[in-house]
Amino acid sequence: MQKRIGILTSGGDCPGLNCAIRAVVSHAKLQHDWEVLGIPYATQGLLERKATLLNLHGLDLRGIDPLLSMGGTILGSINKGDTLAHASEIIASYRALALDALIAIGGDGSLAILHQLACQGNWNLIAIPKTIDNDVALTERAIGFDTAVNTIVDALNRLTFTAASHDRVMVVEVMGRTAGHLALHAGIAGGADCILIPEIPYSIGGVCHQISQLRDRWGRKFAIVVVAEGAKTANDSSIAETQNLASLECGMGQYIANQIKLYNLADRLDVRVSILGHIQRGGIPSALDRLTATAFGKAAVDLIAREQYGQMVAWQNGRVVDIPIANVVTRSPLPVAPDNYLVQTARCMGIYVGDG
Amino acid sequence: MQKRIGILTSGGDCPGLNCAIRAVVSHAKLQHDWEVLGIPYATQGLLERKATLLNLHGLDLRGIDPLLSMGGTILGSINKGDTLAHASEIIASYRALALDALIAIGGDGSLAILHQLACQGNWNLIAIPKTIDNDVALTERAIGFDTAVNTIVDALNRLTFTAASHDRVMVVEVMGRTAGHLALHAGIAGGADCILIPEIPYSIGGVCHQISQLRDRWGRKFAIVVVAEGAKTANDSSIAETQNLASLECGMGQYIANQIKLYNLADRLDVRVSILGHIQRGGIPSALDRLTATAFGKAAVDLIAREQYGQMVAWQNGRVVDIPIANVVTRSPLPVAPDNYLVQTARCMGIYVGDG
Amino acid sequence: MQKRIGILTSGGDCPGLNCAIRAVVSHAKLQHDWEVLGIPYATQGLLERKATLLNLHGLDLRGIDPLLSMGGTILGSINKGDTLAHASEIIASYRALALDALIAIGGDGSLAILHQLACQGNWNLIAIPKTIDNDVALTERAIGFDTAVNTIVDALNRLTFTAASHDRVMVVEVMGRTAGHLALHAGIAGGADCILIPEIPYSIGGVCHQISQLRDRWGRKFAIVVVAEGAKTANDSSIAETQNLASLECGMGQYIANQIKLYNLADRLDVRVSILGHIQRGGIPSALDRLTATAFGKAAVDLIAREQYGQMVAWQNGRVVDIPIANVVTRSPLPVAPDNYLVQTARCMGIYVGDG
Amino acid sequence: MQKRIGILTSGGDCPGLNCAIRAVVSHAKLQHDWEVLGIPYATQGLLERKATLLNLHGLDLRGIDPLLSMGGTILGSINKGDTLAHASEIIASYRALALDALIAIGGDGSLAILHQLACQGNWNLIAIPKTIDNDVALTERAIGFDTAVNTIVDALNRLTFTAASHDRVMVVEVMGRTAGHLALHAGIAGGADCILIPEIPYSIGGVCHQISQLRDRWGRKFAIVVVAEGAKTANDSSIAETQNLASLECGMGQYIANQIKLYNLADRLDVRVSILGHIQRGGIPSALDRLTATAFGKAAVDLIAREQYGQMVAWQNGRVVDIPIANVVTRSPLPVAPDNYLVQTARCMGIYVGDG
Repeated sequence: MQKRIGILTSGGDCPGLNCAIRAVVSHAKLQHDWEVLGIPYATQGLLERKATLLNLHGLDLRGIDPLLSMGGTILGSINKGDTLAHASEIIASYRALALDALIAIGGDGSLAILHQLACQGNWNLIAIPKTIDNDVALTERAIGFDTAVNTIVDALNRLTFTAASHDRVMVVEVMGRTAGHLALHAGIAGGADCILIPEIPYSIGGVCHQISQLRDRWGRKFAIVVVAEGAKTANDSSIAETQNLASLECGMGQYIANQIKLYNLADRLDVRVSILGHIQRGGIPSALDRLTATAFGKAAVDLIAREQYGQMVAWQNGRVVDIPIANVVTRSPLPVAPDNYLVQTARCMGIYVGDG
Repeated sequence: MQKRIGILTSGGDCPGLNCAIRAVVSHAKLQHDWEVLGIPYATQGLLERKATLLNLHGLDLRGIDPLLSMGGTILGSINKGDTLAHASEIIASYRALALDALIAIGGDGSLAILHQLACQGNWNLIAIPKTIDNDVALTERAIGFDTAVNTIVDALNRLTFTAASHDRVMVVEVMGRTAGHLALHAGIAGGADCILIPEIPYSIGGVCHQISQLRDRWGRKFAIVVVAEGAKTANDSSIAETQNLASLECGMGQYIANQIKLYNLADRLDVRVSILGHIQRGGIPSALDRLTATAFGKAAVDLIAREQYGQMVAWQNGRVVDIPIANVVTRSPLPVAPDNYLVQTARCMGIYVGDG
Repeated sequence: MQKRIGILTSGGDCPGLNCAIRAVVSHAKLQHDWEVLGIPYATQGLLERKATLLNLHGLDLRGIDPLLSMGGTILGSINKGDTLAHASEIIASYRALALDALIAIGGDGSLAILHQLACQGNWNLIAIPKTIDNDVALTERAIGFDTAVNTIVDALNRLTFTAASHDRVMVVEVMGRTAGHLALHAGIAGGADCILIPEIPYSIGGVCHQISQLRDRWGRKFAIVVVAEGAKTANDSSIAETQNLASLECGMGQYIANQIKLYNLADRLDVRVSILGHIQRGGIPSALDRLTATAFGKAAVDLIAREQYGQMVAWQNGRVVDIPIANVVTRSPLPVAPDNYLVQTARCMGIYVGDG
Repeated sequence: MQKRIGILTSGGDCPGLNCAIRAVVSHAKLQHDWEVLGIPYATQGLLERKATLLNLHGLDLRGIDPLLSMGGTILGSINKGDTLAHASEIIASYRALALDALIAIGGDGSLAILHQLACQGNWNLIAIPKTIDNDVALTERAIGFDTAVNTIVDALNRLTFTAASHDRVMVVEVMGRTAGHLALHAGIAGGADCILIPEIPYSIGGVCHQISQLRDRWGRKFAIVVVAEGAKTANDSSIAETQNLASLECGMGQYIANQIKLYNLADRLDVRVSILGHIQRGGIPSALDRLTATAFGKAAVDLIAREQYGQMVAWQNGRVVDIPIANVVTRSPLPVAPDNYLVQTARCMGIYVGDG
């Protein structure tokens, strides 16, 4: 049966979104000959009832399809918080655009809102998880995470060379919002000496003890401290609360760097900060993100063909499955569990991961 | 209890082996203060009773540990077939070296032989799976595969630019031995138009039909054909058997290129071959391979600490588990299953993956 | 004055061509508001009088201009040898297309032919040098060379890991046609042990002596031998002429590998070949190639604005200059000079670069 | 004649320093059998009379030499300003260490100080230029610049994807101290829309006009603004001086971002800042930096062999030359000249490079 489906990308961008869009369009058009409408800027496009018919790319540029290797999203995205204020208009747009189904590629926040709208509006919604934070529940993989980890590992490699040359403590602030998955994965793979994440209490004393140990036991005069942007401030009584607050305005990376310097003024450590920032969202998608995005895009179209709605495609146990969005939403954002295998692995490698 | 453990790498090298060695040494020394003996050249080193005490690296080079980012294996490896001829001497070396346990990092062939030796010699063997072919059973990941897929995707990206500029059919031969996992993963992620693998019958007619379709339907004048080195020759009656055999000596890539040219001489297709070869084994390990190798190395040491031998560490369902080597060996090498999800995904993307 | 200019890319493709096209279009349109005609497939497009009006790219894809990072050429290219058979028709096309000037991006072969046509047809020709072989005379840089060198260095890095793990002699065949610039630059930067180029006589004995020295003096059991595709066969009397010829059909890389094995059968060296092939032409252009291509494209338009024709833009002494194409053509292809500074540098690093 | 030479690296680290060290050691030992002393931490090591005999690397790690691909410097470096306070002790160390000559790898600041010490102490000094700022006079190349440009281009590529997805103005702060070479080269190669450098006056009005033009003329809703860390604050009368100063404390990137937002509050531009920071110093050296470093290292040893002291090796007109350090020091740091070819090129590409 001929269908007309919409697709949008919501929340922060990441590498692999265009691969998923490409997969949806390819499968929907080549196998089913459906119409695919690209809805720009997520709910903003719905609100304004804007949509563009998507075709297979690569018709110019000598047939080279740029979507496979382009980061970001050709549909655009937004992070605005006022979606629910316009809920009824957005809900109505689904019918106004005559959609049979809507595929939403988003993280836990976006999916929660879209799920709510879909329930109210009786939409046929299919979700595809994407997030560099890896905090969407019930799926082992989400689009963008693998590339972001590789980007950070590459940055840690660069920073290690320069830190080692100058005997510096390099504090590297990475993304992850309220979760520490990104810091944990990249820190282990990138050879960090300390990994500070929101889920595990840590102390500046612990960090400084690790730095001293490296020096005293191994003669290592530099150290790499990876800190998640959402890592909470240390409960360290040697530091006055006001100092805490003042320096926290500069972000977690600067805060930790300041604390390390204050903790042991006598050591005169040369502490520097590197805030990786937006480069973590960009880049050519890794092979794994391309595969995940393509497999998810294909599976999303299959769900629509079977008219099995309200589901999110997910990766579990080596294959693509689908699970009710409702279940995902209630369990996200997923933190790093205290008994997480990688936390234990990090500690066995001699990495300081808090005092747990 | 103080232990003395050996570690060796066997079979073809791949990125991530040094990460696993590093993880074993770190965990064994930092947590347990065990002795770790590096055995060079796998069973050859055992036979010659050579071994070196391994220490934590990074003591020179200003503390930068090169093992995290170095491909290959500092222990060396061999691919010789005469191990079983010296079985009794090799078996005896385990006691001669006074080992309490042996960690073997290898693929399905190596693990089968070492498992046999371990059974005969009553060794305490722990296995860590590595293979760029991804054909070790009962684990979703093996060290080296992710990096190799990324390497091929990068090469496909390069080859696509040049193929498109000259309207060429580019036949790209990739590794994988008897399995098509590598070709399948890299082909989808790298934007291939045809993927030929050992497990799925294909025909040159099918390949040429795809090439024509791209031209007639989309105006695409180039095509990328990924062929696994182990893909069987086509059952295509239009090609004389003698021609088959003559050209097969040049490898699968050249064979397929010749067949495409012969199939439709009138079209005068400009067909080129690129044999990726040994570069697929090399390279800086990807973040995922570093994480997998580190987690596997840690888990291997834990098994020894629990004196739980005869097990292979494996990745299943989002975590590290361990399974009897005996089970792995009987089910490896694992081919691409006919109902493999990625095969279906590839076909939905419009990729020719044989006539199944 | 309003002008109508053509642009074509000729000969083998390389990274940076699209950057040059982009620079020509940007400068011609933004500053001068000229018409720019893209002529597909070099002289073939002229012969068929095909041309497309080029506009600034990046109008879709959310404004991201893919030309800056795309290898290859969106204009297509050919390597056919029958241009001169159709010379009069091709010459006439210049007027038929009402061109005021033609910018040709090509290597020494293409530029020679186009220069001849331009002289006969009284065209206003401007040349931009491109070649991964670096054999265009009178310019220190040509588009594509820097990226190709980086590509080979990356491949050598990968191959070194795997060669070292298995104690192998890895023979790596690189492009360069009749010149050794590519092999020489990449070999030094990539840590080769031997570099064999067309311009310098070498012997298999010399290669094997180097391999033995590495083993005996430094305990190095692997070696990396970089051989240019155009390196002449060795004058080594220990090898029968017929063997030479038979193995040469397989290309220089395989030939050298065979000769090394034959030279010292007793050593049973494990010699492998890696033919880098077409991947050397592909890839995202390096920063230097982007800059060179952009500066050259800008300068080419400036020459047309000044109506100063018959010139090739070139890089000399840290800046863009222009020189008569006639001078370039008579001195190209430029070989590696015997007293080349990098040859001396290589030898001082202990690299075998022939017996000179 | 047997010699004993010292080598040190001074100032900020960069990729390629280890290549130069490797080249010096290789050439000095293989060809001349000299002793090479590595002096740690530049003048600090001299002051403390510390030195280590350097040997050819790659004797462990299966013969793989890590120096070719490692960023940073194994000798360590410092940026301290108190060298001249200890001048006499440092000067005396040269004799105390019994050096016949000293090779200093440094930027313009380090070379000026070392030149002064050498003159006073009658040292036999040879200089090798390194700087990611490219501000050492009289040489077309310095070690580290090419890699840093590539690093920034890669970052701009990543940031472009995310900026385009969210319709953002991305302000990217890059290094370069008082010079704009790095911003200029990377900005052109990376597709920047505005490049703000210390040498050319610019205005926030000019930047905002460019952003509006992109939107109004081409429909481009994002923009990339590259700003050199040393770019002076804008002379823009619409912004109160106190605001200028307040925001300047956050660095040039944040300052420019704030000014853009303030300039046109009505537009509600989504302006973000990315400070690339220390990652610009790190990374695997590019092929060009490896070649330059190797050629420079070789040439430095040759100068010592010829006992031609007080010279800096340099790249001019396609070859390695040497020039008096005195001449270099008086003309460095070299700013971007107003008639610089790349400035003109950038403007012809439609990039805003100030109001000159």
